[in-house]
Amino acid sequence: MYKYVVPERVLNGGTTDVYFKRTQDILKAEGINPVVVMEVFPGRDGILCGIKEDIALLKKILPKDAEVWALDEGEPMSRKEVVLRIKAPYQSFGLYETAICGYLSSSSGWATAAHECVAVAGGIPVTSFGARHVHPNIAAEMDYAAVVGGCNGCATILGAQMAGCKPSGTIPHALVLVMGDTLKATKAFDKHMPKSVARVALVDTFTDEALEAVRVSEALGKHLAAIRIDTPKERGGVTMDLVRELRARLDQAGMEHVGIFVSGGFSTEKIKMFTDNKVPVVGYGVGSQISSAPPIEFTADIHEIDGKPVAKRGRIPGVTENPRLKRVI
Amino acid sequence: MYKYVVPERVLNGGTTDVYFKRTQDILKAEGINPVVVMEVFPGRDGILCGIKEDIALLKKILPKDAEVWALDEGEPMSRKEVVLRIKAPYQSFGLYETAICGYLSSSSGWATAAHECVAVAGGIPVTSFGARHVHPNIAAEMDYAAVVGGCNGCATILGAQMAGCKPSGTIPHALVLVMGDTLKATKAFDKHMPKSVARVALVDTFTDEALEAVRVSEALGKHLAAIRIDTPKERGGVTMDLVRELRARLDQAGMEHVGIFVSGGFSTEKIKMFTDNKVPVVGYGVGSQISSAPPIEFTADIHEIDGKPVAKRGRIPGVTENPRLKRVI
Amino acid sequence: MYKYVVPERVLNGGTTDVYFKRTQDILKAEGINPVVVMEVFPGRDGILCGIKEDIALLKKILPKDAEVWALDEGEPMSRKEVVLRIKAPYQSFGLYETAICGYLSSSSGWATAAHECVAVAGGIPVTSFGARHVHPNIAAEMDYAAVVGGCNGCATILGAQMAGCKPSGTIPHALVLVMGDTLKATKAFDKHMPKSVARVALVDTFTDEALEAVRVSEALGKHLAAIRIDTPKERGGVTMDLVRELRARLDQAGMEHVGIFVSGGFSTEKIKMFTDNKVPVVGYGVGSQISSAPPIEFTADIHEIDGKPVAKRGRIPGVTENPRLKRVI
Amino acid sequence: MYKYVVPERVLNGGTTDVYFKRTQDILKAEGINPVVVMEVFPGRDGILCGIKEDIALLKKILPKDAEVWALDEGEPMSRKEVVLRIKAPYQSFGLYETAICGYLSSSSGWATAAHECVAVAGGIPVTSFGARHVHPNIAAEMDYAAVVGGCNGCATILGAQMAGCKPSGTIPHALVLVMGDTLKATKAFDKHMPKSVARVALVDTFTDEALEAVRVSEALGKHLAAIRIDTPKERGGVTMDLVRELRARLDQAGMEHVGIFVSGGFSTEKIKMFTDNKVPVVGYGVGSQISSAPPIEFTADIHEIDGKPVAKRGRIPGVTENPRLKRVI
Amino acid sequence: MYKYVVPERVLNGGTTDVYFKRTQDILKAEGINPVVVMEVFPGRDGILCGIKEDIALLKKILPKDAEVWALDEGEPMSRKEVVLRIKAPYQSFGLYETAICGYLSSSSGWATAAHECVAVAGGIPVTSFGARHVHPNIAAEMDYAAVVGGCNGCATILGAQMAGCKPSGTIPHALVLVMGDTLKATKAFDKHMPKSVARVALVDTFTDEALEAVRVSEALGKHLAAIRIDTPKERGGVTMDLVRELRARLDQAGMEHVGIFVSGGFSTEKIKMFTDNKVPVVGYGVGSQISSAPPIEFTADIHEIDGKPVAKRGRIPGVTENPRLKRVI
Amino acid sequence: MYKYVVPERVLNGGTTDVYFKRTQDILKAEGINPVVVMEVFPGRDGILCGIKEDIALLKKILPKDAEVWALDEGEPMSRKEVVLRIKAPYQSFGLYETAICGYLSSSSGWATAAHECVAVAGGIPVTSFGARHVHPNIAAEMDYAAVVGGCNGCATILGAQMAGCKPSGTIPHALVLVMGDTLKATKAFDKHMPKSVARVALVDTFTDEALEAVRVSEALGKHLAAIRIDTPKERGGVTMDLVRELRARLDQAGMEHVGIFVSGGFSTEKIKMFTDNKVPVVGYGVGSQISSAPPIEFTADIHEIDGKPVAKRGRIPGVTENPRLKRVI
Repeated sequence: MYKYVVPERVLNGGTTDVYFKRTQDILKAEGINPVVVMEVFPGRDGILCGIKEDIALLKKILPKDAEVWALDEGEPMSRKEVVLRIKAPYQSFGLYETAICGYLSSSSGWATAAHECVAVAGGIPVTSFGARHVHPNIAAEMDYAAVVGGCNGCATILGAQMAGCKPSGTIPHALVLVMGDTLKATKAFDKHMPKSVARVALVDTFTDEALEAVRVSEALGKHLAAIRIDTPKERGGVTMDLVRELRARLDQAGMEHVGIFVSGGFSTEKIKMFTDNKVPVVGYGVGSQISSAPPIEFTADIHEIDGKPVAKRGRIPGVTENPRLKRVI
Repeated sequence: MYKYVVPERVLNGGTTDVYFKRTQDILKAEGINPVVVMEVFPGRDGILCGIKEDIALLKKILPKDAEVWALDEGEPMSRKEVVLRIKAPYQSFGLYETAICGYLSSSSGWATAAHECVAVAGGIPVTSFGARHVHPNIAAEMDYAAVVGGCNGCATILGAQMAGCKPSGTIPHALVLVMGDTLKATKAFDKHMPKSVARVALVDTFTDEALEAVRVSEALGKHLAAIRIDTPKERGGVTMDLVRELRARLDQAGMEHVGIFVSGGFSTEKIKMFTDNKVPVVGYGVGSQISSAPPIEFTADIHEIDGKPVAKRGRIPGVTENPRLKRVI
Repeated sequence: MYKYVVPERVLNGGTTDVYFKRTQDILKAEGINPVVVMEVFPGRDGILCGIKEDIALLKKILPKDAEVWALDEGEPMSRKEVVLRIKAPYQSFGLYETAICGYLSSSSGWATAAHECVAVAGGIPVTSFGARHVHPNIAAEMDYAAVVGGCNGCATILGAQMAGCKPSGTIPHALVLVMGDTLKATKAFDKHMPKSVARVALVDTFTDEALEAVRVSEALGKHLAAIRIDTPKERGGVTMDLVRELRARLDQAGMEHVGIFVSGGFSTEKIKMFTDNKVPVVGYGVGSQISSAPPIEFTADIHEIDGKPVAKRGRIPGVTENPRLKRVI
Repeated sequence: MYKYVVPERVLNGGTTDVYFKRTQDILKAEGINPVVVMEVFPGRDGILCGIKEDIALLKKILPKDAEVWALDEGEPMSRKEVVLRIKAPYQSFGLYETAICGYLSSSSGWATAAHECVAVAGGIPVTSFGARHVHPNIAAEMDYAAVVGGCNGCATILGAQMAGCKPSGTIPHALVLVMGDTLKATKAFDKHMPKSVARVALVDTFTDEALEAVRVSEALGKHLAAIRIDTPKERGGVTMDLVRELRARLDQAGMEHVGIFVSGGFSTEKIKMFTDNKVPVVGYGVGSQISSAPPIEFTADIHEIDGKPVAKRGRIPGVTENPRLKRVI
Repeated sequence: MYKYVVPERVLNGGTTDVYFKRTQDILKAEGINPVVVMEVFPGRDGILCGIKEDIALLKKILPKDAEVWALDEGEPMSRKEVVLRIKAPYQSFGLYETAICGYLSSSSGWATAAHECVAVAGGIPVTSFGARHVHPNIAAEMDYAAVVGGCNGCATILGAQMAGCKPSGTIPHALVLVMGDTLKATKAFDKHMPKSVARVALVDTFTDEALEAVRVSEALGKHLAAIRIDTPKERGGVTMDLVRELRARLDQAGMEHVGIFVSGGFSTEKIKMFTDNKVPVVGYGVGSQISSAPPIEFTADIHEIDGKPVAKRGRIPGVTENPRLKRVI
Repeated sequence: MYKYVVPERVLNGGTTDVYFKRTQDILKAEGINPVVVMEVFPGRDGILCGIKEDIALLKKILPKDAEVWALDEGEPMSRKEVVLRIKAPYQSFGLYETAICGYLSSSSGWATAAHECVAVAGGIPVTSFGARHVHPNIAAEMDYAAVVGGCNGCATILGAQMAGCKPSGTIPHALVLVMGDTLKATKAFDKHMPKSVARVALVDTFTDEALEAVRVSEALGKHLAAIRIDTPKERGGVTMDLVRELRARLDQAGMEHVGIFVSGGFSTEKIKMFTDNKVPVVGYGVGSQISSAPPIEFTADIHEIDGKPVAKRGRIPGVTENPRLKRVI
């Protein structure tokens, strides 16, 4: 099971907004260190993710008698609902407000987008394929969040490890191009890959998908689990009609066992349209719908200082009730 | 000067899509390793960022006789313009296609958003304040990209270090709440901070901004550089009228030297509206407009194999002309 | 009970369209004076108001054997429904067509707007506060119509007298400004006003509403019935969040007995939003939504002359059936 | 020349919001009566009207040493521009804030709407015909404001007297219906009316306008100045094509001297369309576009008390510069 | 019963796209003439029309052992549903692909539009009046298709003959204008027309419809079946209010037996509005809504060649199931 | 040169609205036959077409001393501009009002649509390809009108003959399917067709256009003038990117002489987009944009009877000036 190790750059305050560092310096100089209750809540509804990292960080930095309540990784949360409550001397954790919010913001954004895709996919598995659209420092974290949000699997090796599953993938255009032929590439894949890896042939690289799909299926026979189409926009993209025609042509060739796996521009709306129209696919590879999802903004507010309810203007003083919270530290 | 060190998780392929790992295994088994030309281009116009990290990675992995051409960090780029061209044996870099695109996607997204804010700010400095909305693994990278895109500064300590500037910040609500009074907090800040740090008082925590602004200004006098308002939505947010009234009331109190720094929900449109209406601010703190900017999707295509023009369907075979590219390796 | 006295300027024809005066002169000169049936109907659905004044006028001018049918003051009416039918020699009332329509148009416009506000207020009382947006010649008439439309009360002294209720009001910004302090003004109000006048403190003049609300509440204790907020647009106006926070802060201070009365920009839509979201207010002060409501256009058509059905083109000759009409003269 | 006499119901405070009455009582009881500067400004751009009545009221109530500055009746004004400034002991005029704003709100609303019609009429005279849509208490005031806003004339006798012009009008449908024939009615009009009144025949009552127009024109010859059409919506209303056809048919009958006067649903947009298309009309009768115009909201703010700049939150303390103001008291 | 005779210009290939002629020449030269299955389907839902002409053509050209399946004239059909299937040696019919599709396209477009009008007319008869908007070569075909789509009748003599009904019509404006008077024209019509032709008077030519309707009705009495209004746009067109007023005025004149027939600009939407509002009409004359309806595009695809399933890219090879098809040849 | 022969069904009144037949019968019975002036005008701007047929008809039916004025075939015309004026005894032509308008309506609709396509095509030839979407009775007339409107050519044999040009066409999908291979079909075409017919190969039937285009080009070499793409919607249709890629791939294969001809869904907007983006095509095949264009409605009005100006309501009596008209009979 994956265990999060807080990196040095976070622990030493490198990634924090500098005014929290200055606040710490001032409070130390003044000798002020009250016990405060800080509450963290999201700016919109979604799936909570990143709380594991928050708790790992808090365990590392909080003193013994501190108390922390939180929702679980992967739980649904509502706008303005408190998902994390910390009660501890302010100096022990004030420096980390940036990181505490940041872990949740990015990861919950991805998990929520994944959840929305899965919700409309009608039970067809969705795989996270968007690592290429995010900085490698968070590619694995993004994939992990996608699985927390409901994806069946993800493409990066480290992301899969974090999420406790096997990495998923078919054949990239690069392999087909380098080998010069779709069938040759698929046969090489079949020859060298362990049996546990499903054979899924990419059939849109050189020529019409329908011809290639039948050619590759007939060559690999029962070895072939599925074909993948990722038709470029310049060739019309992946449409419902295309999938249906491929299904018909594969069936006419006696290749009912070969599934059709689709990727390329699958937004929530497009997946929903495929589901509503019962388009016969066996899996969706989803990229930027998840990986480019905007972060969910989290806000951290102080609501109590040394037992006294406080709040800045616009917020309600005192601890906010949320019976769903569980004590985690 | 900041020098990028490629992390182990990237180098060992952990953050790559697994099918590139499998492709490498297959090609090795088959003994195929042609010299290929791969070209990378963005899906929309913007400011290129992350190319420094790409080049650092490529220097680490490419063999001697490889060739790399690229645009510079911070250069404008057009949709579908080639910004990076690699000529090398495929096995030496195929594994890193995910990372090569990923570095550019996130960082160019942030730099481009920052550039758009700066472009409409009419010369008023813009500071990147959004680290709390992104995962700490990339908080510093986001701030660095914001400066590449044109921001005057940024809030994270490590981001500023990467960008070669000092971190910027004022006073958080937390300090005011913990000290219990805006003036007290500002005086403590004034007492303990080095002279090089500008005194900017946050005046919206407990009561009306106009009263607090005058009170703090009169107390600190010439020590005070500016006040900051970050009025919550629940109290109407930061509006043009509010800034103008504060300016008038500060001027009536003889506090013409105290600037007004604004933050909270400043989108490109809102900054533009302030500029168009000549609202008298001395600086903008911009958060999610930059930090939540969607990545710019980059695509990597093989265009030549062993000197022969190739391309997948929908792309044009052969090397794409771009006289702006410079040889970097 | 208020009794309408027709003013001289109406009786002497000063406020009529001159062509009706000329018509009268011509018909007199020609000796033509048939018994006509004139019918009056509105251009849209609404609440009938002003019929009292019409009847008062008609009683004053019609000969003995004239007949008048009408709906009651405050009754709902449909577009094109006949609300008033006059059967009398034409010369006796032709001069007053302008006034007969005019009384109904303005008053029904206000009553209808008031009715729409009350209909969405979910039982919370609505008070008419808009006299300052209309000419003093009709300020009282507007307030009267608002009460006919369903308002609980109104602000002008004469309007309340006409409507048979007590005038309503809290404390204006002027008193607070002149006395220089919210609490001082409220205490003076409490000291000098008769007990029958509810104490409602205006808390948004000088500083943050939340602070003032608690300060005034604690000072007046059980004397205070409610606080009023009328926050200017420049400070975000009166929002649902603001009311909720005030409620919470008053409750935390043990001031559950102090209600929150709101005013400032309350349109039908805004009242409905407050009702739908169960925002805890005890009263609405509504201004321009009622006072600036457009008149409902009424049309007067001749449908019978000396017992013969007639009508101008576009209208149907003969008396129009309407069983809801009651004989009033 | 018309001279405004402030009615008793205004002077005795009957039309004021009751809280101004209470404020006066409290301040008297407390013996507080500072000299204040109150400024009045509109909520949108327009034509100022009603200031004459304001000045008449202020002359009646202010003590000797009071000072008043104002713009002139009929001047253009901008949103938030100060149009009236009063400097006097507060008790002398505080009671009248409702009336001071009210005079301006209704009248400026009408004058502004009239101005907008005139501005697009391309020099063709516009007459105010909307008295039937407003309460008789203000029918004359509305007509007066329409002339202030630029109308050539108005229909009510008292309104015309206030505006210093003759009342305008043609023939109502009622006269035609009562006399039973368009031509008969027009001839009676011609016979009995003084020469100074232009003969304008209404030709849409019984049958097609084109036939009637020619019939009446041929019968009256040079006596006839114009025909009026006010075709009901049920018969297609007054359209550009209809006017052009009438013009052609009148010309073919040798009746070039007979103008075409139009009324019925003429909004600013419709007048503009007629002007843009050079439709040959000689006059517009405008009703609800002027009479149903929403009031312009005016606000009265205290900006100085005993020489000290003050203001409520959201406004700027101290006297507001406006070089266009003239001393009127 | 009407029997379609294929014109020479179609049979000799004059109206075909030239490349089908060339295809025939090439295949003949090459000696290629397989038995193919061609399927024809529409691009949107509608009512099939023109299939009678297709079958007449195919009977003329196909060899003995050819097979043809089709839906019936007038049947509803769905988008992409096969409505015609031909199995025959390609050379026997390939030349006529243009004509086969063309018959269906135009006629189904008209029939479908007619069907939509009838569907919303609530049982009131609809007559096709649009021959003047189409080329005389297809005026009768258009009228025939309108009746296939559900119209009660049509105006052209030949169209009615094709559809097996009597041609319908009232009186044109030309007759009224040439005779100089509506009543005179109607009486002449009554005098000279056979009894079997219903008397329907057109009453909008010279003057107001209401007056003319009553005048003509009173003159013809029981002879008159209906009046028709076709009021030009310049006079407001035919509105619901106009019909209702005419109905009322006719009823008041004791002319309850005279129906109101309407024409002029009746779109599907306008008919529906009349139906929804129960406007008392006895018939609709519909012109361009039917005659200007866009053709429905039909596509002809080869799905089998000498027993082997084929298809071009984007279509599914092999015969498409459609149990609704009936063998017609 | 093509000469129009009026068909019997038109001459014998079969295609006329029956009420014109009845009108003729009545007028004959009454012995009424005045000389009338009838004017015909279109309901919107466009290109006049069909006037040739009108004149042919009028020559056939009018008596000696009749006069006819008209615009030329192909001339631009404005909304409501008189394009045809007939002066003749009414009985001689009244029967043909339906046909006179009908010839112009359909043909001008097609010519105008063609003109709009040509106007945005930037000089690239446009060919009319839409015969399959219209009834064969007018397929040739439609093609003729398209050439009148500006098309370079058309597909039907008879249409081309009428327009005085050669019919245009490439290769249909049917030929490729029947011969089983794109190259085989193209070679057969090349072998059997006369030299005067340009070789244009259709390359989208079986597989990817890019591969087929190069294959066919290399096989035919200089014989090949162009390839045509008509990619089905199910495969993304014909896009700008697709054309550019084909151009690049053909150029890379040394096939610069092979043009790219496009067809399939080319609307005015799509042609304009191609022109604006300088997409390298050599010709457009346009179908339904022309063939499904709505007719332009023409109206025929009587304006003079025996020298006396008349008109129905809504129109202006007397002859309408139009200096562009030429005397044609």
